[in-house]
Amino acid sequence: MRIALDVMGGDNAPAEMVKGAFEFLQTADESVSLILVGQEPVLMAEVAIYPFDESRVRLLAAEDVVGMDEKPAKILKTKPDSSIVRAVQLVRDHEADGVVSAGNTGALLTSALLLLERIPGVRRPAIATFIPTAKGGFLLCDAGANVDVRASDLVQFAIMARAYAVHEMHIKQPRIGLLNIGAEPGKGNELTIRAYAQMSEQVDGFIGNVESRDLFADAADVVVCDGFVGNVLLKLSEGIIINLTQWVKYELMQHPISLVSLPLLRPALNKLRQALDWEEHGGSPLLGVNGVVIVAHGSSSAKAIKNALHAAQDSVQNNLIVAIRDGIAEHMEITEERHVVTT
Amino acid sequence: MRIALDVMGGDNAPAEMVKGAFEFLQTADESVSLILVGQEPVLMAEVAIYPFDESRVRLLAAEDVVGMDEKPAKILKTKPDSSIVRAVQLVRDHEADGVVSAGNTGALLTSALLLLERIPGVRRPAIATFIPTAKGGFLLCDAGANVDVRASDLVQFAIMARAYAVHEMHIKQPRIGLLNIGAEPGKGNELTIRAYAQMSEQVDGFIGNVESRDLFADAADVVVCDGFVGNVLLKLSEGIIINLTQWVKYELMQHPISLVSLPLLRPALNKLRQALDWEEHGGSPLLGVNGVVIVAHGSSSAKAIKNALHAAQDSVQNNLIVAIRDGIAEHMEITEERHVVTT
Repeated sequence: MRIALDVMGGDNAPAEMVKGAFEFLQTADESVSLILVGQEPVLMAEVAIYPFDESRVRLLAAEDVVGMDEKPAKILKTKPDSSIVRAVQLVRDHEADGVVSAGNTGALLTSALLLLERIPGVRRPAIATFIPTAKGGFLLCDAGANVDVRASDLVQFAIMARAYAVHEMHIKQPRIGLLNIGAEPGKGNELTIRAYAQMSEQVDGFIGNVESRDLFADAADVVVCDGFVGNVLLKLSEGIIINLTQWVKYELMQHPISLVSLPLLRPALNKLRQALDWEEHGGSPLLGVNGVVIVAHGSSSAKAIKNALHAAQDSVQNNLIVAIRDGIAEHMEITEERHVVTT
Repeated sequence: MRIALDVMGGDNAPAEMVKGAFEFLQTADESVSLILVGQEPVLMAEVAIYPFDESRVRLLAAEDVVGMDEKPAKILKTKPDSSIVRAVQLVRDHEADGVVSAGNTGALLTSALLLLERIPGVRRPAIATFIPTAKGGFLLCDAGANVDVRASDLVQFAIMARAYAVHEMHIKQPRIGLLNIGAEPGKGNELTIRAYAQMSEQVDGFIGNVESRDLFADAADVVVCDGFVGNVLLKLSEGIIINLTQWVKYELMQHPISLVSLPLLRPALNKLRQALDWEEHGGSPLLGVNGVVIVAHGSSSAKAIKNALHAAQDSVQNNLIVAIRDGIAEHMEITEERHVVTT
């Protein structure tokens, strides 16, 4: 198995990308190899410090780099020889089985959509992001790829995210919840009321509506919503956790006893931080395209990249794409839903 | 000034409602009086334990009570003599200047909408809820009254919430942000992209898009969004804060040092809890109806009711309704926007 890694993308590229790659190789099965994609002089300089088995690491030169704030719409035309585009092309050309990038998310999505194309029947590929909580965590889908969606799209997000929960996260019977503002079936906006009815019929393991107040209390394994709401939820979770933990620390420091007790409490505080650490959870899959694509967080360190590569490896090994294809094929009728426009 | 209080609504009714009422009277100006609305035997039994000045407390009997889970749509027909409906009628009949209820929110909204009617030009009344944070807090509008809205509704939510921030919260130049999933003007879904353009032209103090990750870091004083997203955000904040603080406590308790240090750290932990305590912030105004209506949290204690009554008093004293009427009148063109349907 070969996985392509965009070495140029992300706030900590290239050093942390390459470090993460070699950390991955030490923990991964011998049969897994990597293709590192980036500008040649950068690649040569970075890999020079690691002793490595050439049968497990291939270097692929790409002239260009896509900036983190660049508009992604025409990336295949404007930057055809960028590390993101080249890395995705490796999957299209069957030279790699999956791809990981911490670079410009829009450029990665556009490249994947145009080069790998969608799995038959999928209308909108979506991003699934794992949100760690004190009780374990949940997979949020869509986390931001689609801001305006139909009810049938939510059904597809559920089917695709369920496949990931089963085949990569190894949850046998994932509980699939529809994010809503009330528990009863009739609650919500037009979108969620329609989605509830469709999901009840078509999604295995559908447990009904889940409210946001219960998400951090283990309400579901997979939480389905549109990408606008999902992105608000994702960033709010990050924001609250960061601000709250900083604040707890600040308040504790204001009291003289803290000078004595804080160092002793450190193991507990570290355990908290570690449980909420997204870097443990290996990036977010782009679900619905014909290939394994893992979107790593822009600020990924080597640890996050190592875990994202493991997520790619697991997805390939466990035939995620086949599982999604089968799941979507079983429910082809949902793609034929006519979109009723209401004011 | 007279404020009506629904004594029968809320999880802790009637005892905490009545207790909160008398606590309010002790701290409020002598010129403020209350009308307590509820079933006669309940009222008589509850007020019996408080010595009170009859010039400041009037009792009004209402036969019925609206259950917390009752469907609110036809409440005026099904429960015309309920405490919620009677309390709102007092405002309509100019016997009270404002009303507070911790009862069935939908019934309160329906009663207010039908009995008080909307301020001229307002299409959709909205709920504004204060969310406390470590840095102070922000007013969220709409927090759940309208799940499907137009861009022009968001403009009105901004104008109405701004009036509340100025006239009740006493913020001179509130910073008004549009909740979005990116900082740049072109970001978001169809609704927020259109709303951004309209708000830029029509909302004083508009600071552009704010992302959810920054809300707990004092990004804005007023945060505008549709009621679906607002309700998700509100309940997620509550859920994360409750779960995270419980978890911090649990983890700290796992370490032997905690037996010594936790009691000493208690002042710091209490300060945290107090700052995040919504009960300090006096209920949520329903903005856009012809009268001061404060929606108290269903689980309100006496303290929350006392603060909700103070919010009602401040809103009346500072002419909130006039301020909203003027703000809306200045921007009447937004109500004439034709709704362009897009698929």
